[in-house]
Amino acid sequence: MSKIIAINAGSSSLKFQLFEMPEERVISKGLIERIGLANSIFTISVNDEKYKEVMDIPNHEVAVKLLLDKLTELNIIQSLNEIEGIGHRVVHGGEIFNDSVLITEEVVEQLIKLSDLAPLHNPANIIGIQACHAALPNVPAVAVFDTAFHQTMPESSFLYSLPYDYYEKYGIRKYGFHGTSHKYVSRRAAEMLGRPIEQLRLISCHLGNGASIAAIEGGKSIDTSMGFTPLAGVAMGTRSGNIDPALIPFIMDKTGKTADEVLDVLNKKSGMLGVSGFSSDLRDIEQEAAKGNNRAELALEVFANRIHKYIGSYSARMSGVDAIIFTAGIGENSDLVRAKVLHGLEFMGIYWDPALNKIRGKEAFINYPHSPVKVLVIPTNEEVMIARDVVSLITK
Amino acid sequence: MSKIIAINAGSSSLKFQLFEMPEERVISKGLIERIGLANSIFTISVNDEKYKEVMDIPNHEVAVKLLLDKLTELNIIQSLNEIEGIGHRVVHGGEIFNDSVLITEEVVEQLIKLSDLAPLHNPANIIGIQACHAALPNVPAVAVFDTAFHQTMPESSFLYSLPYDYYEKYGIRKYGFHGTSHKYVSRRAAEMLGRPIEQLRLISCHLGNGASIAAIEGGKSIDTSMGFTPLAGVAMGTRSGNIDPALIPFIMDKTGKTADEVLDVLNKKSGMLGVSGFSSDLRDIEQEAAKGNNRAELALEVFANRIHKYIGSYSARMSGVDAIIFTAGIGENSDLVRAKVLHGLEFMGIYWDPALNKIRGKEAFINYPHSPVKVLVIPTNEEVMIARDVVSLITK
Repeated sequence: MSKIIAINAGSSSLKFQLFEMPEERVISKGLIERIGLANSIFTISVNDEKYKEVMDIPNHEVAVKLLLDKLTELNIIQSLNEIEGIGHRVVHGGEIFNDSVLITEEVVEQLIKLSDLAPLHNPANIIGIQACHAALPNVPAVAVFDTAFHQTMPESSFLYSLPYDYYEKYGIRKYGFHGTSHKYVSRRAAEMLGRPIEQLRLISCHLGNGASIAAIEGGKSIDTSMGFTPLAGVAMGTRSGNIDPALIPFIMDKTGKTADEVLDVLNKKSGMLGVSGFSSDLRDIEQEAAKGNNRAELALEVFANRIHKYIGSYSARMSGVDAIIFTAGIGENSDLVRAKVLHGLEFMGIYWDPALNKIRGKEAFINYPHSPVKVLVIPTNEEVMIARDVVSLITK
Repeated sequence: MSKIIAINAGSSSLKFQLFEMPEERVISKGLIERIGLANSIFTISVNDEKYKEVMDIPNHEVAVKLLLDKLTELNIIQSLNEIEGIGHRVVHGGEIFNDSVLITEEVVEQLIKLSDLAPLHNPANIIGIQACHAALPNVPAVAVFDTAFHQTMPESSFLYSLPYDYYEKYGIRKYGFHGTSHKYVSRRAAEMLGRPIEQLRLISCHLGNGASIAAIEGGKSIDTSMGFTPLAGVAMGTRSGNIDPALIPFIMDKTGKTADEVLDVLNKKSGMLGVSGFSSDLRDIEQEAAKGNNRAELALEVFANRIHKYIGSYSARMSGVDAIIFTAGIGENSDLVRAKVLHGLEFMGIYWDPALNKIRGKEAFINYPHSPVKVLVIPTNEEVMIARDVVSLITK
């Protein structure tokens, strides 16, 4: 029995979950927001009780110290010595890391080098790693990468048809993201299907504020919709997904924006927000669409249409599919999106049951029993994957 | 019986075919290259005889006059009065033209306005129109658009998930190209299948130096792989097709290029040329791949992989497919590409015959007789489509 803490550090936030392993029981979890800003918010919950405090937290080191103090103060743990491992979510592992890794000084140096590929995310992840190391220097820490699961993609999937030296010189290729989630739900799907994952062809639809689709053959990612960055692929809450690349110079020319400003529009003002004109939140959009708002309906159609086509695309990629998985906020909760995505796919053996599809946020099969292709809803759990990898690496 | 001339004007070239209609017989065809440059080349063929001359042709008006002189000089026609109509290929019809149109002054004005959307192509097309009008002012002329066939796409297909006002203000949407070709082969496929086109779901793969895939339901394009420009979609000879849009600012940053210079790389140095490193020509690449050149094999895989996935994608889009069509240079001639594209699609009812697939440049079914989905090779003929539209519009 050991306690493992999973950390997800952003530039001004830090999320955590404390696990009892190997039971995978969540003892406590919480979130520190607005780090480095006035009125930082600290939230922690334990046994269904939630504590919230507003105070000034100047940096991640203070945030981590505060968190550890709270854990003892609230009697969640008796001593910091009980924490046997720390797992850090790291966005970008490049081509170096195809699996989770024990963090050493050398690893941190490599993560710093990789910041070039994920300038918004990796530096924040590194700050989280360093803050935890300062507070708990003797506790082993593990980095778990969003990209690692997709490192099994063959070159024909990950290579862009750009000058080849862009790949060699600058690392320009498809990396894919949400890997920890795609891995978790694919493993869970195999368990639910009662079949060895080695024999399965799965399409996993991680549909949250960010969204990506993965083709998982024999347990390995062989293609995914996100690319060099998490902007690519399907339309998302505020991200455009794939567009004609020629549009960037065209938009620059029309609006007088720089390339980086256009990129900002593609990342933050596009997707469902751009099409609907009023919200990036699917719940708002579903509500307005139900009232007959055309632009809201259109945002829904555009969102679902792209995912629907990826299912066809990835079925072709794997010469068929055994199960479709829906996960993350939208995938777990929106029967409307699932219905639109699955509509009209009977020709490839997908027969789903509108009654079963009503499920929200719970593991379930939503296909008819006679459907050759199964359809599963599986709430994702990236944190437990992190905790598992920590246990496995520190007991090696 | 009437003679119709089909014109395809580029910025420094002019292609033509003279038809005897309604027989659709090609009486003569030819090409004028290097217009406006020293040593322009004029080529014309009639009854399997080919004439070639090198001279200086300063502009398109001179080119057209020369062409008309040659037609009488070589006794292809006795008098210019025999020419009853001219058809011009025009790349971009925007949202204004959803079908071919008799050219009036007003139409020319609209084409000039649309040049904004196709700055490389429409101006050249307009010069061709004006040159022909100067030489044959009393002969009715018709514009046939590459985009028109795709104007039936629903909004959920053509709209990018960008801020909606980009569509309203700047006309940013998917237009699609190769429409005349997709239309021609889809009509021909219906004839070959002996079924009314209204009942068919077709996927048309126009694979030439440029390449695009179209989903054609009931005779109407409902989705296509090219986008706002002909850069989008699958990898091509020198074009990248879709990439992560975030790569443009990244490449600018790494190479010091401007956005337009990066766009130039995406249009002219990417695709099969970029991946292989030595050629944009599929024949060269097939040859080298056969010798074991890895990068050539990779270029082939990347090219075929994207098309393969579009077939899955568009089958999903139409809830199934009745026939797949291969056309244009590569589609008509490369059994290797067809084999790679079709490989492993049995799960959706595509059973193709490797022996029949050996066909080159001829109309043929290449599926097994028992295949629920038919696979056709159909040489495209955009010029005859142009001639047909001319006849139909001038006899109205």
